[in-house]
Amino acid sequence: MGRILIKDIYLDGKQSDILIEGNRISKIADKIEDKFTDATIIDGKGKAAIPGFANMHTHAAMTMMRGGKEDEKLQRWLSAIWSMEKHLDDEIVYWGTRLACLEMIKTGTTLFNDQYFYIDSAVKAASEMGVRGVHSYVFLDLNNKEMIEPQREKCIQEYENSKSWGDMNSFAVGVHALYSVSEENIVWAFEFAKKHGLKVHIHLAETYQELMECKGKNKCTPVEYFNSLGVISPDLIAAHCVWLSPNDIEILGRNGVNIAHNIKSNLKLASGLNFKFKELSDAGANVCLGTDGTASNNNLDMLDTMQITALVQKAWRNDPAAIPLPELMRSATYNGYKALGLDGGRIKEGALADLSIIDIDNYKFTPNINFAANLVYSANSYCIKTVICNGRIVMKDRYVEGEDEIVAQVRKLYKKLLV
Amino acid sequence: MGRILIKDIYLDGKQSDILIEGNRISKIADKIEDKFTDATIIDGKGKAAIPGFANMHTHAAMTMMRGGKEDEKLQRWLSAIWSMEKHLDDEIVYWGTRLACLEMIKTGTTLFNDQYFYIDSAVKAASEMGVRGVHSYVFLDLNNKEMIEPQREKCIQEYENSKSWGDMNSFAVGVHALYSVSEENIVWAFEFAKKHGLKVHIHLAETYQELMECKGKNKCTPVEYFNSLGVISPDLIAAHCVWLSPNDIEILGRNGVNIAHNIKSNLKLASGLNFKFKELSDAGANVCLGTDGTASNNNLDMLDTMQITALVQKAWRNDPAAIPLPELMRSATYNGYKALGLDGGRIKEGALADLSIIDIDNYKFTPNINFAANLVYSANSYCIKTVICNGRIVMKDRYVEGEDEIVAQVRKLYKKLLV
Repeated sequence: MGRILIKDIYLDGKQSDILIEGNRISKIADKIEDKFTDATIIDGKGKAAIPGFANMHTHAAMTMMRGGKEDEKLQRWLSAIWSMEKHLDDEIVYWGTRLACLEMIKTGTTLFNDQYFYIDSAVKAASEMGVRGVHSYVFLDLNNKEMIEPQREKCIQEYENSKSWGDMNSFAVGVHALYSVSEENIVWAFEFAKKHGLKVHIHLAETYQELMECKGKNKCTPVEYFNSLGVISPDLIAAHCVWLSPNDIEILGRNGVNIAHNIKSNLKLASGLNFKFKELSDAGANVCLGTDGTASNNNLDMLDTMQITALVQKAWRNDPAAIPLPELMRSATYNGYKALGLDGGRIKEGALADLSIIDIDNYKFTPNINFAANLVYSANSYCIKTVICNGRIVMKDRYVEGEDEIVAQVRKLYKKLLV
Repeated sequence: MGRILIKDIYLDGKQSDILIEGNRISKIADKIEDKFTDATIIDGKGKAAIPGFANMHTHAAMTMMRGGKEDEKLQRWLSAIWSMEKHLDDEIVYWGTRLACLEMIKTGTTLFNDQYFYIDSAVKAASEMGVRGVHSYVFLDLNNKEMIEPQREKCIQEYENSKSWGDMNSFAVGVHALYSVSEENIVWAFEFAKKHGLKVHIHLAETYQELMECKGKNKCTPVEYFNSLGVISPDLIAAHCVWLSPNDIEILGRNGVNIAHNIKSNLKLASGLNFKFKELSDAGANVCLGTDGTASNNNLDMLDTMQITALVQKAWRNDPAAIPLPELMRSATYNGYKALGLDGGRIKEGALADLSIIDIDNYKFTPNINFAANLVYSANSYCIKTVICNGRIVMKDRYVEGEDEIVAQVRKLYKKLLV
């Protein structure tokens, strides 16, 4: 069993030692004697420990398209993305996901909830990089009768494949969105998920257009539509949820739905800025944060995401006291782990050993009055020096194994998408 | 005369050499022969050059209060700040400004427009750090008759002092805001500025409360009020300008006023998010960017500022094409230099040699389809490796002289403010 002993690190307002044994945090105390000859010792002086971030909505391999289309109206942007996605293959998704995992590790993310194509290659990449992933295939039939059965087969096949993925990666059912999946396949997908105890990952109420089209076609909101199908449950991870009525919020709250709020993408694509963070939390929903894909972000940086989430909440609510730092931190860490049924995203005895070590002995953390405020509003992800995931050091002193090769491969392969 | 020759650097879409002689960029070409035995040679391979940023509204020494009050309603936040500011002195402003300059250098800012107390100490700090500063005293009399004359004397005295400040720092007249300065002193201050060819730096139309109070008292908007006093001119640098009527925009535009937009502070204090960037630019105003003080930001990072400015513009305008990258870059660089009458903020032959060298050979700039998009939306300020200001290297490979001492001094001194 591997052991890591972190000495004299700043944690929750005081200096502590943290012992990791296997893939769990086994002990936290003022002082832990180093009686293990095999332990890796980390000097925590001038550093702080924070839980690993959970990026609850992304399309990892879209790193390949970073900066591919900028400052464009939505339809032209979408056309450009789709035209690039036509050229995807296993190799591109593999290297794109490796780049995404590299970026997530560098920015302190230890768990990501992904939805994309060629997911076996994404799983291979994530496994090699050592972060936790939950992977759903982009399940969509565009209401085309001929696509209904093949999509089901694909879903079943990926679920079967997932049995050999190992402990760090798991399968979720993807339902792309209500406008891209037929009603019969939506119902089928949720039933399949229920039968096999799987989470469902969907895009929901992302744009005003989606809301209006649903109202026109179904005479109700997107949330009401899914509710009428009887598929709203705590196993749902709903990305975006920008356009919600009070009744939608009540439905999502009462059912303890997990919401992935993606502020940077919502701003950049002009989907909407007044996400109902407080209303959803108060109603009982589990509000988490995500980055969305890098085609619309353009990074996978959860510190960036936390800062902008909080700033925009304060502004649109006209309340500088909105979304206090502890709640913000929880939404980026613990809430995501909880959504995916994992005991992590917090530094507690018994929890999964997923955490980051932050350098606080520098100008960005000066003065050192409020650690969380310095982390979110002053620092950037470069302060993250060492990342541990599942009890294993995946980044040490900012170095991640293989990073030069990843950069070189992506710089070669992305050109295939621009044909 | 000092010479710096930067070889093979990415600039405006191609690889170039840049020669700096004295404090100016003297030559830009595909290849510049190194015939100078005295030149410092910088290898630009895998790097890009960008103009230095102009932070057009800040209160530099407020770094001392970073994280001092978080997640509070505005009145409680203001009380906390004022109670800290009572303890200011020359030593605190000196070290606070040194920390601010350290942070600005680290994040690529070479020019800042400051307004604070104990400005001779701020100038001393800025001079030692080697960045350009324009300094105004917080001129305010709170409509108290007894304060009118002393404030004028203070202004005259600082103007006289400024004659010995040297080339890198200059004096501007500060007018705190219309609610904190009497009408007779507003008029006096603008006349003083005009007589001596000085810029005027004010807070203008920052909050809804300011707008409503002005309407109640003067039966017009803050901009209309200043216009009625005949003081609106291209020598004005107006910070915030969040609450503007179409007529206000027309007045500011027609007079070519310089506007310092401070998105992070406007969001964090919930002053308002729908800044009229396009309308002001279209009308003829010179729109620049600023950070405001770290008490309400909490950093002085212009890359952060650029990203959030653009994202919020896209969102509130409901237009993903809003504020294209070249315009955004110009607002953070050239427009600020122009506002202060300086030929800098752009990399052109003859311009002031104020620029940053960016590391682009890393994952944040991968793939390398769109340099500006990668810089603004993917990277963070850690990519800034070397900063040159006035032809002098002020940061080399991320190292700024004296940074450990600055951090240590501020961590000792800020406690005086919390008494």
